[in-house]
Amino acid sequence: MRPNSAYGEIERRFRRINALEEASAVLQWDQQTTMPAGGAEGRAEQLATLKVLAHEMIVNPALADLIPAARGEDGLDIWQQANLREVERIWRHSTALPGDLVERMSRACSACEMAWRRARPAGDFAAVRPQLQTVLDLTREAAAAKAAALGLTPYDALLDQYEPGGRAAAIDALFGDLARFLPGFIGRVIEHQKAGPPMLPLAGPFPEARQRALGLELMTAAGFDFERGRLDTSLHPFTGGTPDDVRITTRYREDDFMPALMGVMHETGHALYELGLPRDWRQQPVGKARGMIIHESQSLLIEMQACRSKAFLNYAAPLLRRTFDGAGPAWEADNLYRHYTHVERGLIRVDADEATYPAHVILRYRLERALIAGDLTLADLPGAWNDGMRELVGTVPASDRQGCLQDLHWYDGAFGYFPTYTMGAIAAAQLFDAAAQADGDVLPGIGRGDFRPLLTWLRKHVHRHGSLVSTDELLRAATGRPLDVATYKRHLETRYLS
Amino acid sequence: MRPNSAYGEIERRFRRINALEEASAVLQWDQQTTMPAGGAEGRAEQLATLKVLAHEMIVNPALADLIPAARGEDGLDIWQQANLREVERIWRHSTALPGDLVERMSRACSACEMAWRRARPAGDFAAVRPQLQTVLDLTREAAAAKAAALGLTPYDALLDQYEPGGRAAAIDALFGDLARFLPGFIGRVIEHQKAGPPMLPLAGPFPEARQRALGLELMTAAGFDFERGRLDTSLHPFTGGTPDDVRITTRYREDDFMPALMGVMHETGHALYELGLPRDWRQQPVGKARGMIIHESQSLLIEMQACRSKAFLNYAAPLLRRTFDGAGPAWEADNLYRHYTHVERGLIRVDADEATYPAHVILRYRLERALIAGDLTLADLPGAWNDGMRELVGTVPASDRQGCLQDLHWYDGAFGYFPTYTMGAIAAAQLFDAAAQADGDVLPGIGRGDFRPLLTWLRKHVHRHGSLVSTDELLRAATGRPLDVATYKRHLETRYLS
Repeated sequence: MRPNSAYGEIERRFRRINALEEASAVLQWDQQTTMPAGGAEGRAEQLATLKVLAHEMIVNPALADLIPAARGEDGLDIWQQANLREVERIWRHSTALPGDLVERMSRACSACEMAWRRARPAGDFAAVRPQLQTVLDLTREAAAAKAAALGLTPYDALLDQYEPGGRAAAIDALFGDLARFLPGFIGRVIEHQKAGPPMLPLAGPFPEARQRALGLELMTAAGFDFERGRLDTSLHPFTGGTPDDVRITTRYREDDFMPALMGVMHETGHALYELGLPRDWRQQPVGKARGMIIHESQSLLIEMQACRSKAFLNYAAPLLRRTFDGAGPAWEADNLYRHYTHVERGLIRVDADEATYPAHVILRYRLERALIAGDLTLADLPGAWNDGMRELVGTVPASDRQGCLQDLHWYDGAFGYFPTYTMGAIAAAQLFDAAAQADGDVLPGIGRGDFRPLLTWLRKHVHRHGSLVSTDELLRAATGRPLDVATYKRHLETRYLS
Repeated sequence: MRPNSAYGEIERRFRRINALEEASAVLQWDQQTTMPAGGAEGRAEQLATLKVLAHEMIVNPALADLIPAARGEDGLDIWQQANLREVERIWRHSTALPGDLVERMSRACSACEMAWRRARPAGDFAAVRPQLQTVLDLTREAAAAKAAALGLTPYDALLDQYEPGGRAAAIDALFGDLARFLPGFIGRVIEHQKAGPPMLPLAGPFPEARQRALGLELMTAAGFDFERGRLDTSLHPFTGGTPDDVRITTRYREDDFMPALMGVMHETGHALYELGLPRDWRQQPVGKARGMIIHESQSLLIEMQACRSKAFLNYAAPLLRRTFDGAGPAWEADNLYRHYTHVERGLIRVDADEATYPAHVILRYRLERALIAGDLTLADLPGAWNDGMRELVGTVPASDRQGCLQDLHWYDGAFGYFPTYTMGAIAAAQLFDAAAQADGDVLPGIGRGDFRPLLTWLRKHVHRHGSLVSTDELLRAATGRPLDVATYKRHLETRYLS
């Protein structure tokens, strides 16, 4: 590659864009964890400015010339070629929308989110419907524009923002199978649990400082590198920061240590992915996480596959007893496992257990597809929500507060995101199964608190590839087959019915 | 003002620049307080990118046309006119240097700082002299370029970066007077203290958590608004963040609570200034702190004038006893006051007491002026340092480690900064005197832990003006006379000899 090559110039520009994105990531983390209330206005301005500058750099006309010029250059290695492909993808997405639409969307989402914050506690969907209608209209306009530019259907154009290469047709195949499976499965699990030994309560309080110390210990066991990351507290847990400074957060309830504990392990899964991304490509698009399916798969692999396993709870039970001065049968591994695998027909997605969670996601996926296609109006949304809950989860909310008002996503313009949660869960099952088959010490390792066999496999087969290949290619190479739902169903049946 | 005026366009551009500078300020705070080691490389890239982008916006050729166009526009109010003047000042400074010199400086300073970190512990000035020579040569080149562009002497051009309008001639007049006064004064104080009651030791340890709680209590008493700021810990104490999110830091020694306590009050003085800057001009140059003389005056006014006073220690003594379970004569206000006003001929500026500190600063000011003028070579620097210490402070270091290697400033290219410390101390004395004369409750208020009378006066006469007028004009308006050294000397004599 010549020193003044078009490709080299593209890398130079994206290094700068990356620096702005990293700065934003740290400022967002600070906003959620540290910033005093008075900083809000200034912070919004800082973040908006960084976003606009990065966007201006991407839609800069020079890039439109540099991309084809770079494509014609000889001697690009496979990473550089893949990087160029990712650059082009980002460029296509960014240039597909007229600038004024981006700004109208941003303003509409802010207004709708504010209205939603007021409407939700009252369960008053009608109060936020006008704002949501504006967001939906603009989202459909944006989806149409992106569809035209990218040669995709409108819904796929939205999905592609979160999961590059993700297509509704592939999701339909897997979710259709799951939607037939889940309602009966959930019923059988609930019967099965009723017939089994009772779940003994765990008496608190559980001091926050002890929960945190335990979280740090388990993060270390899982391979989190505290030279390159932190654990802090925020109202909504998330993984933020940058790949060499990964910051996870959790929140603590002193009457129940379980949400924070599994929450920490969930975010640790996200963090291990970021920490394992290819070091040489830190500042370029090809070095980033592949997409939200793989990202969710990594958090769910650690939380659901590894840390809700009987093997893990055999290891963790003595630590839990020591941490919380627990004693007696309630603190035995079997009873702790019953807590961590307890299934019930709940109304709230974020509180759902492993077995009902996908039913919540499938409902949202169906509804958002219909909304984007124009097959469902907002007036009919609450009814459609309740019908879907009855069919898929087997319970119906008494108020929209616990129904179609519960999640921020749509009110913030995030259509096309929901399916990645359950696609990630399916991928997690398949990847964990492949890891356990490839190295017989993966599961025994977890049973002694040694995640190194698992992490070594994940580093080699998932993390270090960044965005070099597509999600499909990555999963095929790692597991020997395309994503299917069989391993996931088998995992659920094994864990919840045997 | 017309909506599309040149002035309006300038404000728009500087709002963006301000957002980048605020983002940098938060990222720098994070780097000193929070960031894990692994984040260092990425953070350097983030900060460099933000700096380069802000610089590009300032030197953008469009601004060279907008400034004269705005100057010709009618209807600008006095704040807008002052803002335009500040914009032009920033523009002149930024465009005075060729881009490659900025980059060479930046690289030379990084290399020199690294060499200094190795050379200092060994006291090996020769090891860092080549790098310091490069920094000095480039600084003199930059000073000459700025001098030509700004119509100033080279040293004044450097000083003007930290203290707009600051001139060596004015400093010479005040420092000349002080340099004649200090050596004799220091000798008299030491004799006076020998003749007085002994300083009784305070027995620790003093747990960090208690020191922090006390710091928070005193910050609140002084008027710090925790809705718009924080107190954290860092290796080197500083005030950072933004005017609506002011973050001060300190460090704690468990064997001595006094450095952290006065350190917190010092940074609180800086913070109160930032918190009091004019709200309507947050995002524009005219809304910023006037310069380093006023900034240092605000920290020293709170720390030295207010919190090392007998009145304050009468108020604080019971809090200190309660906080640290102190009892007996050592914990009486008189003995605490003796600790906080103890004077000795020390070698290290940052550890110096109020009486010897200005002597350290005058030495550095003399030496850096001579270095910039070419009247002193680096080969002669250690000797000149020791001669100056003998004359001004009355003690001589055994090693350059405690001599010309002790401060980072020059090794990092910061020539022209030192005099603002003592100019700030002189201004603090004059401002505090004016406040106490204007409101008879200022000093009694401090004696009961009520800083509101003082803060009200400072808000009205200093903080709310931002950069509306020059330092000279601000001090004249606030105190009724130009800065002189008489009040400062009287303060020192009253506190240390009576």
